[in-house]
Amino acid sequence: MVKVAVLGHGVVGSGVTELISKNKKSIENRAGQEIEVKYILDLRDFPDSPYQEKFTKDFDQILHDPEVSVVAEVMGGLSPAFDYVMALLKQGKSVVTSNKELVAAKGAELLAAAKAHNVNFFFEASVGGGIPIIRPMHQCLAANEISEVAGILNGTTNFILTKMIEEQMPFDDALHLAQELGYAERDPAADVEGQDACRKICILASLAFGQHIYPHTVHTEGIAKLTLDDVAYADSWGGVIKLIGRAKRLPGGRVTASVYPAFLNRHSQLAGINDVFNGILIRGDATGDVVFYGRGAGKFPTASAVVADIIDIIKSNCTCKSLSWKDSDGGNVEDYQAEVLRFYLKLSGISRAQAEEVLGQAEYLARAGQPDGELALVTDKMSEYALMEKLGRLGVQPLSMIRVLDY
Amino acid sequence: MVKVAVLGHGVVGSGVTELISKNKKSIENRAGQEIEVKYILDLRDFPDSPYQEKFTKDFDQILHDPEVSVVAEVMGGLSPAFDYVMALLKQGKSVVTSNKELVAAKGAELLAAAKAHNVNFFFEASVGGGIPIIRPMHQCLAANEISEVAGILNGTTNFILTKMIEEQMPFDDALHLAQELGYAERDPAADVEGQDACRKICILASLAFGQHIYPHTVHTEGIAKLTLDDVAYADSWGGVIKLIGRAKRLPGGRVTASVYPAFLNRHSQLAGINDVFNGILIRGDATGDVVFYGRGAGKFPTASAVVADIIDIIKSNCTCKSLSWKDSDGGNVEDYQAEVLRFYLKLSGISRAQAEEVLGQAEYLARAGQPDGELALVTDKMSEYALMEKLGRLGVQPLSMIRVLDY
Repeated sequence: MVKVAVLGHGVVGSGVTELISKNKKSIENRAGQEIEVKYILDLRDFPDSPYQEKFTKDFDQILHDPEVSVVAEVMGGLSPAFDYVMALLKQGKSVVTSNKELVAAKGAELLAAAKAHNVNFFFEASVGGGIPIIRPMHQCLAANEISEVAGILNGTTNFILTKMIEEQMPFDDALHLAQELGYAERDPAADVEGQDACRKICILASLAFGQHIYPHTVHTEGIAKLTLDDVAYADSWGGVIKLIGRAKRLPGGRVTASVYPAFLNRHSQLAGINDVFNGILIRGDATGDVVFYGRGAGKFPTASAVVADIIDIIKSNCTCKSLSWKDSDGGNVEDYQAEVLRFYLKLSGISRAQAEEVLGQAEYLARAGQPDGELALVTDKMSEYALMEKLGRLGVQPLSMIRVLDY
Repeated sequence: MVKVAVLGHGVVGSGVTELISKNKKSIENRAGQEIEVKYILDLRDFPDSPYQEKFTKDFDQILHDPEVSVVAEVMGGLSPAFDYVMALLKQGKSVVTSNKELVAAKGAELLAAAKAHNVNFFFEASVGGGIPIIRPMHQCLAANEISEVAGILNGTTNFILTKMIEEQMPFDDALHLAQELGYAERDPAADVEGQDACRKICILASLAFGQHIYPHTVHTEGIAKLTLDDVAYADSWGGVIKLIGRAKRLPGGRVTASVYPAFLNRHSQLAGINDVFNGILIRGDATGDVVFYGRGAGKFPTASAVVADIIDIIKSNCTCKSLSWKDSDGGNVEDYQAEVLRFYLKLSGISRAQAEEVLGQAEYLARAGQPDGELALVTDKMSEYALMEKLGRLGVQPLSMIRVLDY
C-alpha cells in the first residue's frame, strides 16, 4: 500500500484524486500495489467533497508523515510550491508535478536535489497535458541525438488562431469566445503573450539538450498583434499562422530557443493541429521527425499524466537518475535575431519596385480587398539583422512581420 | 559494462550495431554504463564489415556466454526466432525485438517466460518503427482506461494510397514505384494484403486490453482492390481512403479488431498522415485522443527503438513485470460484421429509386466521368449483416464496399 498526498484541490488536483478513485483497479494492477490518497492540502474548505476526511491545511503534517512516500504538487506558481517541493525531496519523498512554471524556473535545482536524496522528481504533466511527451523523449528517444524540438504548446492560443483562420473571427472576438468556453483565463496574458508556451519549450529543450534553458533568455512573442489580413496572406501563401515554441541545438552546444507566431506550410504536420489541441515535433538523428498530438490541457488529461508519474514511481521502486540536466548561467541561448529565416512582411508607403530593389528576390502575396499601396511578401532567407538593415534603407516600419518556419 | 548480442545483420540489425557505435557517448550517458556489442549472429559472411571480429554463426555461443545479459532479436520470422528468444529468456537474458510476427503470434507466451525468469522482453520496435508507442501506451497512459486503438500501421500501403489520392496514380503503378524506391518488397503480399498491419494491431490491442489478440482472429483486408474511382468518390464525400488497423474494447470485455481500407473525413487526424509515415491514435477515458506520428519503418528509426529498449533494460536494472497480458483462446474477438457502421458502396445495374427504397437514407456521391448507371453512396449506420440483407433484396453485388470510420 502506497500513501500519496496531493498538494492543491483545484482543477488538476481534484482530477488526480478522482482519477485514482475511478480507475482504482486498473491503476493498482499496473502499479503492482494499492494506492491511497492520504492527504489533500488546500487552504480552502470543500464541505461537499466526498474526500472530506483527507483535507488538511497543514503542510508539515504531510512533510513529517513517514507513511507518505509520493506527493503530487498541483498548486501551480513558484511560491510556496518551490519551498514545499524542495522540502519534500530533502525529506526523501518523491514528487510529481504539473507545474510548468516551477519546472521551467527551478528544474535543474529540483532534479539535483532529487538525485542527492535518492528520490524521483517527475513532471510529465507540465507539458502537453495528457500527451505523453517527457517520458517518450527521455526513454524511447534515448538512442537518438535530438537536434530540434518544436510545437504548438498552448491550447488557448491555438483555439483563437483556429477561429481566426477557419471563421475569419477577429482576435478580440476569438479571445472572448475562448474565455466564455473556459479555455482562457479572465486574465489571458500568460497564454496570449506566449509565457505559457515559453515555459514549456524551456522544459522540453532542457531535457532534449541536457542543459537548463531559462524562460527569461527565450525571445517570446504572443499573438495579440495578429490580424485577419495576416491570416489571409498566410492562406494565399499556402499556409497558416501558428504560435510555435521551438529550440534547436547548434554546433558547439549552444541552442536557439524562441516562441513566436509563424507561417507554416499547409502540409506541415503541425499545420493541421487545431482548436485546443497541442502537437509536439521531436527531430532525432535516427528517428527523423516524430510528432505527438493530443489535448494539451484540461482536468482529466493533465490529471492522467500526474497519475501516470505516480504509478511509474511506485512500479519502478528505484530512482531514475538519468532524468536530469545540468544547470546553466542562462548564457547558453543564441541571439535569435542571428538565425537565417524567411520573413513575411506587410508594408505600406513604398512601391513594389522599391521593395524589390532593396529586399531582392521575394514571393509577393495577394488578398481579397487588398488596398492600393499595401504590399505583402515573403522574403528570401536572411538574418533578422539583415532584414532590419534593409527595412532601414527603405525607410519603412513593417505593419506586420512574421517568421516563416519549415516543419 | 554491459555486453549485448545482436541476432541478425540485416537492415535493422546493422542499424542497431551502427547506432550503438555512432551515438556511443550519449547512449552510455543515458544508460549509466558502457555498452558493447559482443556478438552479431548471422549465417552470412560480411567480409567488409568493420565489426568483423563480432560475427558468429553459433547461437549457442551467445546463449551460454554469461557475459551477455541483453540480446536484440532482429532476424524476423517465427523460426528460429521463437526458439532462440525462448531459450535466451530461460537462460536469464533479457531480449528486445523488432519482430512483429513473433510478438503477435507468441507475445503472451514470451512475456510469461520473461516474468518467470525475472528478465525483460521488450518490443518497442515491433510497431511504428521509431515512433515511441509501446512504452507510452504502457506507462504514460497507465492511469487511463484505453477504449480504442486505431492507426495507419503500414508505411508501404500508405505510400501507395497517397500516390493514388494525390496523383491519381493507379494501384499497380503506385506499387511498382514503391518497389523501385525500396518501400515495398518484391513480394509485397504481407504489406498490400494487410498482414503486416494486422500483426501490429494485434500487439497494440493485446497491450491495451490485457489479453492476447491473435492475428488469425482479426478480419483483414488489403488495398489491392481499391480503384481510382473509389478514391474520387471519397474525395467528393470530403475524405480519403486509408488502410486502418483498429481495435475497440466492448462492454463485457470482448473486443473488435480488424484491418481494412476505410473512408476517413478529411479533418480526421489520421487523414493527413501521408507517404510512408505511420500514425497511431489511442483513445483513453482521461486523456481523450492522443496521436503518435512518425516514420513507421526504415533502418535507423527501427534501430533507434531497439536501442532505446536496450538502454531501458540496462538503466532500470530491474524487471518490468507489468508489461504483460493474459493469453487467450482466440475467442475474444467479436464478429466484425456485427459492428454498426456506415458503408460506401459503388453499385451498377439498379436505379437510384430502387436503391433509395431498400437502403433508406444515404448520401449520394458524384465524380467526374461517372458513367450512366453507376451509383455511389454512403449509407446510414447499420450492421454489415443488415447491409448484406438489403443488397440481397436489391439483387446486386456491390462493385466496391468500403467502411466509413469516425476518427
